Amino acid sequence: MSPPVNATAARLFEQHRDLLERAKHACATREYFSPFPETPDRYPDSAAALERGEAAFRALLGQRFDLDQPGEIGHLGGEISPYTGQPLGIDYPRADADALFDAARAAMPAWAEAGPDARVGVCLEIVHALFAELPVLLHTVMHTAGQSYAMSYAGSGTNALDRGIEAIVYAHQAMSAVAPAALWERRFGSATIRLQKRYRLVPRGVAVCFTCATFPTWNAYPAMLASLATGNAVIVKPHPTGILPMALSVRVARRVLASAGFDPNLVTMAVDSAAEPVGKVLVKHPHTAIVDFTGSARFGAWVEQNAYPALCYTETSGVNTVILESVHELEPVARSLATTMHLFSAQMCTSPQNIYIPRGGIDVGGRRVGVDEVCAALAAAYRGVTADPRRAASILAAIQSPSTLELIGSMRDAGARRGSIVVDSGPYAHPEHPAARTATPVLLRVTPTARELYCEERFGPIGFVIETDDAASALQAATSDVRQAGGITAFAYSTREEFLAMAESAYAAAGAQLTCNLTGAMPLNFAASYSDYHVTGLNPAGNATLTDASFVAARFRIAQSRRPVA
Amino acid sequence: MSPPVNATAARLFEQHRDLLERAKHACATREYFSPFPETPDRYPDSAAALERGEAAFRALLGQRFDLDQPGEIGHLGGEISPYTGQPLGIDYPRADADALFDAARAAMPAWAEAGPDARVGVCLEIVHALFAELPVLLHTVMHTAGQSYAMSYAGSGTNALDRGIEAIVYAHQAMSAVAPAALWERRFGSATIRLQKRYRLVPRGVAVCFTCATFPTWNAYPAMLASLATGNAVIVKPHPTGILPMALSVRVARRVLASAGFDPNLVTMAVDSAAEPVGKVLVKHPHTAIVDFTGSARFGAWVEQNAYPALCYTETSGVNTVILESVHELEPVARSLATTMHLFSAQMCTSPQNIYIPRGGIDVGGRRVGVDEVCAALAAAYRGVTADPRRAASILAAIQSPSTLELIGSMRDAGARRGSIVVDSGPYAHPEHPAARTATPVLLRVTPTARELYCEERFGPIGFVIETDDAASALQAATSDVRQAGGITAFAYSTREEFLAMAESAYAAAGAQLTCNLTGAMPLNFAASYSDYHVTGLNPAGNATLTDASFVAARFRIAQSRRPVA
Repeated sequence: MSPPVNATAARLFEQHRDLLERAKHACATREYFSPFPETPDRYPDSAAALERGEAAFRALLGQRFDLDQPGEIGHLGGEISPYTGQPLGIDYPRADADALFDAARAAMPAWAEAGPDARVGVCLEIVHALFAELPVLLHTVMHTAGQSYAMSYAGSGTNALDRGIEAIVYAHQAMSAVAPAALWERRFGSATIRLQKRYRLVPRGVAVCFTCATFPTWNAYPAMLASLATGNAVIVKPHPTGILPMALSVRVARRVLASAGFDPNLVTMAVDSAAEPVGKVLVKHPHTAIVDFTGSARFGAWVEQNAYPALCYTETSGVNTVILESVHELEPVARSLATTMHLFSAQMCTSPQNIYIPRGGIDVGGRRVGVDEVCAALAAAYRGVTADPRRAASILAAIQSPSTLELIGSMRDAGARRGSIVVDSGPYAHPEHPAARTATPVLLRVTPTARELYCEERFGPIGFVIETDDAASALQAATSDVRQAGGITAFAYSTREEFLAMAESAYAAAGAQLTCNLTGAMPLNFAASYSDYHVTGLNPAGNATLTDASFVAARFRIAQSRRPVA
Repeated sequence: MSPPVNATAARLFEQHRDLLERAKHACATREYFSPFPETPDRYPDSAAALERGEAAFRALLGQRFDLDQPGEIGHLGGEISPYTGQPLGIDYPRADADALFDAARAAMPAWAEAGPDARVGVCLEIVHALFAELPVLLHTVMHTAGQSYAMSYAGSGTNALDRGIEAIVYAHQAMSAVAPAALWERRFGSATIRLQKRYRLVPRGVAVCFTCATFPTWNAYPAMLASLATGNAVIVKPHPTGILPMALSVRVARRVLASAGFDPNLVTMAVDSAAEPVGKVLVKHPHTAIVDFTGSARFGAWVEQNAYPALCYTETSGVNTVILESVHELEPVARSLATTMHLFSAQMCTSPQNIYIPRGGIDVGGRRVGVDEVCAALAAAYRGVTADPRRAASILAAIQSPSTLELIGSMRDAGARRGSIVVDSGPYAHPEHPAARTATPVLLRVTPTARELYCEERFGPIGFVIETDDAASALQAATSDVRQAGGITAFAYSTREEFLAMAESAYAAAGAQLTCNLTGAMPLNFAASYSDYHVTGLNPAGNATLTDASFVAARFRIAQSRRPVA
């Protein structure tokens, strides 16, 4: 009755069991946890590892990327580094979709049979192997997404892996909650019926995992690992401008699977180009059972509407809102907002975009401060971030897509027409990469009459100060914008407990995760694995949460058999 | 930080806590459990209670049903008893859909605020109140669905309530797994950030619960209670020919909610008629957040395809298959199959329909027995069920819909053309209800060339014996029919362990719940609450399982807030 023992997988499970238990505890308590060092300098054998990583990255450039997966029908590439403006020159195998699905389906039965513990052991080994590859991976993220070195290491590396572990924890818990067998006995009239029952976990099928251009790994790792742990195969569909981080991740996963005695075709990659997109084909493929999507609101909405009969988990985008009602001191608030609105040039799904301020100003430590003065404080804080080019570079990093520069320009012009420019945008000189595509954030000041400008995600370093009638209407406007356009994070500043309580209720109903009165060293939009739920599913910013039970529970089903016993 | 205490609800939770814990234990172990007596004679104060129940049912007839819910825009009714052929003469309030949604939404905030324990306490009280009403309810099921007295009591009463408790258990576990608060602390550079976090459970919204004509309560109770326990409001949409059981259930739920201090509009009912159906309006209503559907495959498919952005949980229909490969004794197998294929005239989503037999016959205790002889044994067993009219009545009960009689006729004729009639159908004389709509089952013998006849649910007492090349092709044909047409239950008879193992694997992959070699007092298709998972979601027979974590986990979402603490 027990699944066939795969010795390697069983050993991996034992090897990682302590980590699994500690991560499980963290998910339950929501306290801080990570098995990984938070900064590159604390990476094991840091100096040598990081140097080897960079060399390994350089060796990938200008080469054909070896993935050794089925169905190869050509090659494509075309990524350009936001830091150098130069093509990476890497070609990836283009695969026939049917061949990938066939290979994935052929790989699944043995993986399903191996059982939850074996799969979880292998998945945690994939996490460790990805961590071992992080000194290479971080360069692949830098030179496709445009992230800073530090963010590529932490945000796209350790934190993304933590989100992956978290998904494995939830998957393991959901599977462990299902009894493998039972002896059931009941009287029917004068007879006693005694049945031996067996319950099998049956994976849903082939999962397709779409990854985005600016943060490829962060949503991909939890989605991939949730699907894999529950017995499914995964076809990764990377954004055409950010293939390399996922190609490397897919190669690592395939290597670990093969080493553990499983078919590496449990994880494959389907690349495409903007000219010949393959996304809709994958979503509508008759063998697609699960779709995980991170990307634009427009294609995300299409995916949500068209994924059926596949399950669909999305994170798209929204407007992240800030309410200023009253503060003890203005400067630390302005500094935190400015830093966060500069972080990775606001190319994060959690970056704040809209700051709502009562037109009559706000109370600052007992003093009424008008909107002009608040804007001046924000402008000063903006200048503070960019004053030192090295610091600016470490925070702003580079702009992933040329279209973002166009959007900054058109929003700047529209904002100037409909309101005023508080801080203008311009390129900044990156001290290490003179050819880097850069832009400092623009901050525009408008009123609710310009709602069509700000009630939509304006992806990139574009912010709005919106003057509302009063604090209550600020909250009302912000939460109603979240309901309409989606919203993942939200921020409120108030010295009045009753206002914060109102904000907590209003944002809970609107479905944005709220941070109150935070200043200081932590980026306002930092989302901690094991502790912060990411995306509520209550507004158009996505339907899936990292990580709750509903992210994993339907990725497998339960089949049972029963028979009489004496 | 804690939700406002509702004293009544808190008391109800304490009162039912022991039941909750025992039910939770049963769901984990999948062992037998029920808090309810299994037969009417063991109902508390049985004789008097049952007599009062029948009198209360009679008092409902020919009256306007008082529901006292908002948005009344007229009345309708039109149910006809399958036992008497007479109209029940009951009119129900027809409601304006927008008014029901408005009332449901207005009722939700206080219900959400009350918190999981309070809601679970009230939900378990609803279960107890429904049990108290069971002596009335069972007559409402008999005279709309056509079930027997015993089945109305157990299948539509206690077993349905057990499935409801089961759903409450899963909802409580899913909600309890979310920590209400955490203190989170991490270093950022040289600073320590310490955040107090709060996690709120936010209900999804208004749920619409479609109930079917033949088994109205069995899927309705778990769906309604799962939605309610997780904080949502429910609008029940009963089948127009089976309103009364749900009208009574809705009234009971409203009374309990009001008694506990909550808005009764958390549960309302939207009736319609075949001429003016309201189902699509409800599914596409902008405030519909959840749809639970039990009913026809055709409308179910439409619901699944059109429910987005609402969550959608379905049970539709399929072909339930039987494989005969080898047996020790034929007669007990034939008797069990015959009884189960007569039970409630096979108007159950779990009734077997297709019996696959190798054309060369089967091994019976070492003797090769041909298909003719197997058919003769089945025919004899069929006659055995109907020989005694009292026993026939207790098993067959009545035919819910006149269209089922037409279907029997057309299938009989098609079967005669394409194969042969093993047992013909005809009315039987119900000893207590001479006007009852009755039909004994037809059993047809065909080959796979007649697949279009049997590879579809033929709702009602219609069975097929299908001759296949051999046992392996029987299994292959049956599971492939399940994949195509859906299938909830499956049955295999074999004395060979290797064949049973093959069948277990094949049916697990096809997603039908398999019963092996069962004979004796238990109906083959009996599904035990707390132990048997109902519907896998792996084939077209439905996408939701009673009850697994995925049935409840997405009915609520998690909103969080966080703020710095010293």
